[in-house]
Amino acid sequence: MSVHRLTLGDVLGEHRRGRPLGTAVVDGDVRLTYPELDDRVGRLAGALAADGVGAGARVLWLGQNSFRVLEMLLACGRLGAIFCPANWRQSPDELAHVLDDLAPAVVVWEESEAVEKARGQVSLDARWVASGEEYEAYVRAALPAPETEVPADSPVLALYTAAFDGRPNAALLSHSALIAHSMALLHVRQMEDGFTFLACGPLFHVGTMMFTLATFQIGGTLVFTPAYEPAEVCRLIEAERCTQAFLFGPMIDGLVEANKDRAHDLSSLRFVSHSPEWDKMITVDDSPWCASRMGGYGQTEVGGMLTFLGLGMGGAGYAGRSSPLVHVRLLDAEGNEVGPGEVGEICARGLSLFSGYWNRPELNEAKTAGGWHHTGDLGRREPDGTITFIGPRLRMIKSANENIYPAEVERALKSHPAIADAAVIGVPDDRFGQSPKAVVVLAEGASATAEEIIEHVRGEIASYKKPRHVEFAESIPKKGYTPDYDALDERYGGGAYPGA
Amino acid sequence: MSVHRLTLGDVLGEHRRGRPLGTAVVDGDVRLTYPELDDRVGRLAGALAADGVGAGARVLWLGQNSFRVLEMLLACGRLGAIFCPANWRQSPDELAHVLDDLAPAVVVWEESEAVEKARGQVSLDARWVASGEEYEAYVRAALPAPETEVPADSPVLALYTAAFDGRPNAALLSHSALIAHSMALLHVRQMEDGFTFLACGPLFHVGTMMFTLATFQIGGTLVFTPAYEPAEVCRLIEAERCTQAFLFGPMIDGLVEANKDRAHDLSSLRFVSHSPEWDKMITVDDSPWCASRMGGYGQTEVGGMLTFLGLGMGGAGYAGRSSPLVHVRLLDAEGNEVGPGEVGEICARGLSLFSGYWNRPELNEAKTAGGWHHTGDLGRREPDGTITFIGPRLRMIKSANENIYPAEVERALKSHPAIADAAVIGVPDDRFGQSPKAVVVLAEGASATAEEIIEHVRGEIASYKKPRHVEFAESIPKKGYTPDYDALDERYGGGAYPGA
Repeated sequence: MSVHRLTLGDVLGEHRRGRPLGTAVVDGDVRLTYPELDDRVGRLAGALAADGVGAGARVLWLGQNSFRVLEMLLACGRLGAIFCPANWRQSPDELAHVLDDLAPAVVVWEESEAVEKARGQVSLDARWVASGEEYEAYVRAALPAPETEVPADSPVLALYTAAFDGRPNAALLSHSALIAHSMALLHVRQMEDGFTFLACGPLFHVGTMMFTLATFQIGGTLVFTPAYEPAEVCRLIEAERCTQAFLFGPMIDGLVEANKDRAHDLSSLRFVSHSPEWDKMITVDDSPWCASRMGGYGQTEVGGMLTFLGLGMGGAGYAGRSSPLVHVRLLDAEGNEVGPGEVGEICARGLSLFSGYWNRPELNEAKTAGGWHHTGDLGRREPDGTITFIGPRLRMIKSANENIYPAEVERALKSHPAIADAAVIGVPDDRFGQSPKAVVVLAEGASATAEEIIEHVRGEIASYKKPRHVEFAESIPKKGYTPDYDALDERYGGGAYPGA
Repeated sequence: MSVHRLTLGDVLGEHRRGRPLGTAVVDGDVRLTYPELDDRVGRLAGALAADGVGAGARVLWLGQNSFRVLEMLLACGRLGAIFCPANWRQSPDELAHVLDDLAPAVVVWEESEAVEKARGQVSLDARWVASGEEYEAYVRAALPAPETEVPADSPVLALYTAAFDGRPNAALLSHSALIAHSMALLHVRQMEDGFTFLACGPLFHVGTMMFTLATFQIGGTLVFTPAYEPAEVCRLIEAERCTQAFLFGPMIDGLVEANKDRAHDLSSLRFVSHSPEWDKMITVDDSPWCASRMGGYGQTEVGGMLTFLGLGMGGAGYAGRSSPLVHVRLLDAEGNEVGPGEVGEICARGLSLFSGYWNRPELNEAKTAGGWHHTGDLGRREPDGTITFIGPRLRMIKSANENIYPAEVERALKSHPAIADAAVIGVPDDRFGQSPKAVVVLAEGASATAEEIIEHVRGEIASYKKPRHVEFAESIPKKGYTPDYDALDERYGGGAYPGA
């Protein structure tokens, strides 16, 4: 066995010895020390192995957040198997796609009509375990799995993302990639001994998962709650003295509102400055992650973050600089590097990168052309070396031979005081090929005409980038945290993108 | 090419793009940005390649600290070759051993009588380049080396250490190991954007090298000075706004003395608290590395630090907890793990571990028995999981069937107010096999009898561990920062160690 080996199981083994008294997980009434977690993981691995889960097999979780997500990941890691926590609130059709695509040997599920329907739609030879008492009995009855040698570069986590062809694909992340990403996050976030993370965002998204894993990496404490619920989040932060939670903008506003009577002491939270009320409740942190207000560029395929604003503070680029364990190139369609100031596809290599998508050999080959992972997103190196994220390559608008990037136009639109939210699509145009159309949500009580808005953008960026059409809407449909451009195209007549 | 590749050359390539304006190195009149450093490294690699340096070849540096040490390391990395900065102040005989053992293809050397003598003693077919103008001409004349694919796990740095058989062995560290160790240090030291390290300790020791490489990893600035000289160190800290320097105990006292008129502003230094005068000159830092006063356990073979006191502050173990990228086991002579509270050999696996010693196949096999690197040092897990370093395995004393560890007895001796320094050896004993002998240096103006000293130790630790003999000496001979036990044994009659 290589003296260089380091798997998630090795990390857990070290915590069992190095932190025998340390609290690993808190979830409702459940509190486990690291040795207790390791014991459960061993027995769960034994149960999975008895159901035929070995190297390369898949295990699926369909449910809310739970400490069981972590222990299932670790148990799969011990067997060389792949664990996938998937969004259980999808439609039966979407869930059936996941079941069909992943073909898991074991599914642990929380009771739900949609899951039951999906189960009926597919022919799948899997063991189904209900996530509550049945799961506990499943673990309890098993004998611990013997230690096996698992290569650190074998995939252990699958996260569904990137629906290139209308169906999401499962990005596979290896032990090595997850550990490397955790190290980058430990560095930028300056996570110290005793770090306690409240996983109140969905664990099937890389954003919550990456902090869960970084906390695990240093033997911190993980506090799980089924979903974001402001009052309960406040209670948990106080009760467990959490140092961080998965929170951003509107979620923080929700906590400020829920805690406006200051019933809960949130001062253990060392986090991002947000508003005067919030800053008074917490301890504002000056780590590069918090001081930069958590900026950067990332995607599931790179393990989370590829660049951190905190590594390029004061720089011109909105995405900062690359994580210390990756390297980035901006490439043109032929794979040649573009110069500073020019727009190219953000391509990357490094230790935290994924191992391709499950079951997509052709897509994987295309995404790694020339030995670089192609993110599908466009970016630009500023003269100071920092990186600006421009937008998805497939969403580039071509108008009269000029390239227009929706994100840039959206930034200009949002700088108008009357505009609360905005998204830009390309609509077919007989004369120019395409022309940009803005979909705009006005701020409450504010007003602005299409002409005023177009004029405003013209004052902010090059004239040819200004929208030729403006539509007013009640809201922008979202996919996670970004506009749902497919839905916008459908509703507002988008199309003819040259890259698509 | 693997999308996961990350070599030192890749890191440099990223800095060239991400920090085009950033100062990479400062050394006397030399100031290089990252693109300038990368250009020089490319040409130096071309020069070395023209001299037959390819994958696996060795290149030797015999000289004082210089930015050339870094660029030679990086140039060797580009070629898959191995770079060794060796102590040039050794005797001709010692230097001849290094030349014979390493058989370098190229030697860059600073003029010295000892090196010239050593050169005459060996038959070596190497290109010799003098470190000043000749070296500059060597770099200038070359064409840049083309990019080659270098495996990240290939050795790139060799550091002579561990003289098990009376001759030092060269520990080989790969790109992957160096990068992993840097990440651990970035985390514990909380090195941020703009970190500027003054390399004022010897670069042929891992202590200075590890901070040099961690600073390089985040694209910080490296300031080189030939050797530690207090007035010049003060000047450089002020002039370059250094955030850290390679300093400990007596070196810090030297700076306080050199700067007692406060002629230099050292406030850029974010460093360890040491004395009231020192603390007033600098900015005392509260990162885990500084707050723990730089403690831990390490050796060249693990890339530097294996454990950090900063990851186990307040714990019972003097060495803290393991670095996040390694795992540690305490094993008995049969390779079985010993329980908490028991003494075993500190064994490790993980990403920062070395690739064995150059040219020592049998030793390498012995050191990695059972897939664990055997450090040769003894340690103990405390009940809280932290680790205590006990002492070298080969130095364990066996007296009347009891194991006695010199370090423990030395700690007890040094807690006596009259004792300035102390070392403990085992001397042959007809009745007990061995018995412990203390070699003691009294503090200036202090006095104590052998009986008083033995009595003091008996009050501190178990009685059977007390010295049976006490010798008074003017000083303790040192090897680096630890007692030179071989010299002590020779002078004071040590021997009969059961582990030797």
